Amino acid sequence: MSNRYRILITNDDGMAAPGLRALVEVARELGEVIVVAPNSPQSGQGHAITIEEPLRLFPVNAFPGIKAWECSGTPVDCVKLAKHVLLKDQPIDLCVSGINHGSNASINIIYSGTLSAAMEASLEKINSIGFSLLDYSWDADFRPAQHYVRHIMEYVLETGLTDCKLLNVNVPKLPMEKIRGLRICRQADARWRENFVEATDPRGQKYYWLTGEFVNGDPQDDTDIWALENGYVSVVPSGHDLTHHRSIPPLKPLEQTTIPQKI
Amino acid sequence: MSNRYRILITNDDGMAAPGLRALVEVARELGEVIVVAPNSPQSGQGHAITIEEPLRLFPVNAFPGIKAWECSGTPVDCVKLAKHVLLKDQPIDLCVSGINHGSNASINIIYSGTLSAAMEASLEKINSIGFSLLDYSWDADFRPAQHYVRHIMEYVLETGLTDCKLLNVNVPKLPMEKIRGLRICRQADARWRENFVEATDPRGQKYYWLTGEFVNGDPQDDTDIWALENGYVSVVPSGHDLTHHRSIPPLKPLEQTTIPQKI
Repeated sequence: MSNRYRILITNDDGMAAPGLRALVEVARELGEVIVVAPNSPQSGQGHAITIEEPLRLFPVNAFPGIKAWECSGTPVDCVKLAKHVLLKDQPIDLCVSGINHGSNASINIIYSGTLSAAMEASLEKINSIGFSLLDYSWDADFRPAQHYVRHIMEYVLETGLTDCKLLNVNVPKLPMEKIRGLRICRQADARWRENFVEATDPRGQKYYWLTGEFVNGDPQDDTDIWALENGYVSVVPSGHDLTHHRSIPPLKPLEQTTIPQKI
Repeated sequence: MSNRYRILITNDDGMAAPGLRALVEVARELGEVIVVAPNSPQSGQGHAITIEEPLRLFPVNAFPGIKAWECSGTPVDCVKLAKHVLLKDQPIDLCVSGINHGSNASINIIYSGTLSAAMEASLEKINSIGFSLLDYSWDADFRPAQHYVRHIMEYVLETGLTDCKLLNVNVPKLPMEKIRGLRICRQADARWRENFVEATDPRGQKYYWLTGEFVNGDPQDDTDIWALENGYVSVVPSGHDLTHHRSIPPLKPLEQTTIPQKI
């Protein structure tokens, strides 16, 4: 493939993450790569943006022959700065984020810095993909994931995405020969059951540390969780319309209620 | 109305925000109120959660007769700690967030700490409402907003929300007599056109500060932006399914493509 594509890469685990390196290795074979990654861990940052303070960009020599910057902000800030400052609004053919260390399937999409970065690019009408591997280990084997990453990136670069501009891709933690292929899915209606570890710090002050358990109450076979549990790579076309459309008609009585004109 | 309802209040502007006070004034007439608000500004924090460090809770005497805590985390953290630590999973009849100083209509819902806090409660199957007034001023007149806040809270407490558990409510910056009523709407397909102010700090280092312009390319009359521009309070029933359902069938060819079994 020629060097005709411009590919923006970001993540939420920072420049040193093996998952980022794995993504760069694939992307550099498909086009011109620009990397802008946060300079601090940004897992769980969701769609946070930095508005209360200034942002910084630091050029780094992280990957031979590839332009890369660390950014002081969130993953979404990285995409905004890449698009508007570094690339001065030149066209970007594809934005890929990840490969995240850990699942971003189902409800994780709303907490995920990885996916929020890709979503931010999709809001700019850039074809965007968030990639995640269901393995939190820094020593995870990214080779099977890389295979599917390349396949999906080539598809999107060659075929394009029309209506929906964002794919949420999760790869099961399996050796190559155990992965059964790809499934186009919907987001499972699962959630986290929270728990907090309560403890006391060295100064005697109480603190709370978030933990939790992922609970899937959505057993159907068309979801991302089903696909992953059954050995498939899940691909969820994703948007940014949070309207619960079917709840509009039943709420119409709220419009009709008489509202007194005094406070 | 009796004191039978338990109402959790949070926001993203912190305990001192006039919008929070305005919300407490309404809610305390409707039930038992618990306030958990961030102890630092959290605008634009989206659905960020704190996982890399511990969280703290500080009881404060902010409103006479009302239990209130400041939290070191994000708005979503406030809701998680309120539900699981402070209230020890006792039932919550309603979670209200705000009143935010500034619009959270349309795409702002994904950047908004105010709405993300309410969404977090909705994930716990708690009826939840995010309230925002289209006035950034700390001296904004919240009285017209309070009127509609009370009306909508009473409706939700008495009628309940069934399928959808989250309402995104925005109030135009208008005197009471100019507000034309409520509209149940969908989220407009609008976005921010970003810009960055570039400048140099006192140490000679370059920085970037996010700014931008809200652009609505969705002129139909069933959106929240239309309602607000035409003098109505907008109410958008909102969910957390980001699946772009109509894009599932056209992406099916990606499943069929032959995948070589070598890496």
